[in-house]
Amino acid sequence: MDLLKKKILEEGRVIGDGVLKVDGFLNHQIDVDLVYKMGESIYEHFKYKGVTKILTIEASGIGLACMAALFFKCKVLYAKKSATTNLGNSDLYTSHAYSFTHQTQNTVLISKKYLDKSENVLIIDDFLAHGEATNALIDLVNQAGAKLAGVSVAIEKGFQGGGDKIRESGIDLYSLAVIDKMNETDGVTFRKM
Amino acid sequence: MDLLKKKILEEGRVIGDGVLKVDGFLNHQIDVDLVYKMGESIYEHFKYKGVTKILTIEASGIGLACMAALFFKCKVLYAKKSATTNLGNSDLYTSHAYSFTHQTQNTVLISKKYLDKSENVLIIDDFLAHGEATNALIDLVNQAGAKLAGVSVAIEKGFQGGGDKIRESGIDLYSLAVIDKMNETDGVTFRKM
Repeated sequence: MDLLKKKILEEGRVIGDGVLKVDGFLNHQIDVDLVYKMGESIYEHFKYKGVTKILTIEASGIGLACMAALFFKCKVLYAKKSATTNLGNSDLYTSHAYSFTHQTQNTVLISKKYLDKSENVLIIDDFLAHGEATNALIDLVNQAGAKLAGVSVAIEKGFQGGGDKIRESGIDLYSLAVIDKMNETDGVTFRKM
Repeated sequence: MDLLKKKILEEGRVIGDGVLKVDGFLNHQIDVDLVYKMGESIYEHFKYKGVTKILTIEASGIGLACMAALFFKCKVLYAKKSATTNLGNSDLYTSHAYSFTHQTQNTVLISKKYLDKSENVLIIDDFLAHGEATNALIDLVNQAGAKLAGVSVAIEKGFQGGGDKIRESGIDLYSLAVIDKMNETDGVTFRKM
């Protein structure tokens, strides 16, 4: 999506060789006008897939998920993160995701009440890097017996490989921007799509 | 706001004498259609106040803040919560909020880059109870030297007193639903407005 790529080039900041700061428009301050258009772009890609629910994860996926949901006219469910390894609660589906950014193991959980086999789920998140969080959300969809319509993320760090593994598994993954290379000297290089 | 009150009566669940579960439409699953209309109602109240930025707090304030921002045509800034008491980072404004729900002391922080004295800020959150989180956000606005246009929350637990203290301080507080009494036997009683 050209508008997002332009914003990344103008306002994103590369730190080291793995971190892209987009806190000015995506995951601390939210440029709602931009994120609304990103939601529309996601809708254009998945509009014939019969999406009935959007699943995301707190906190930085919520804005984009809500904007997309306005187009799909469906509800958003956001998974909660917990530092505890197991809540032992029979009313929850839980999975696990390692955060390379924060170097913590997170438990990711949703209430069983809000996802079941009648749903056709679109997973939305802000970033896809190694794929830990996305795969945890896919695992939750599978545990619920729901159908997976696809996955959409704002920014895929292509060089970390999580996205291509998801594509190879046959899932329809739509990333609004895929970064193939980035470092402090040369900045960001997008994948040709 | 009648639509929200109706939803609370239909789908909210009172637990003990202090907890209202609204995870089916507000803070786990989000009924985006409802929350969009809540954002519109907030806009109707504050539309002549010259709001330039909406400040909320992760994670459950983000959805409502984004919907309201569509009407105000402004950006959303969401404060992050951290369990550490002090990050010692000069680029951040930090404040503190005790969570009665989780019985933890949270540090609430924003980047100085995204709030300054040029802004006229509307604070939005899902719940206002004792006022801990809201007052921490007000503190951040004051630290930045920004103007406070007002505060809006989805659900105010009027019986816990935080909202009335904020009103007494002269701040324009607009709560979409104010609960004056609730318990498992009688359910929820709203304040007459």
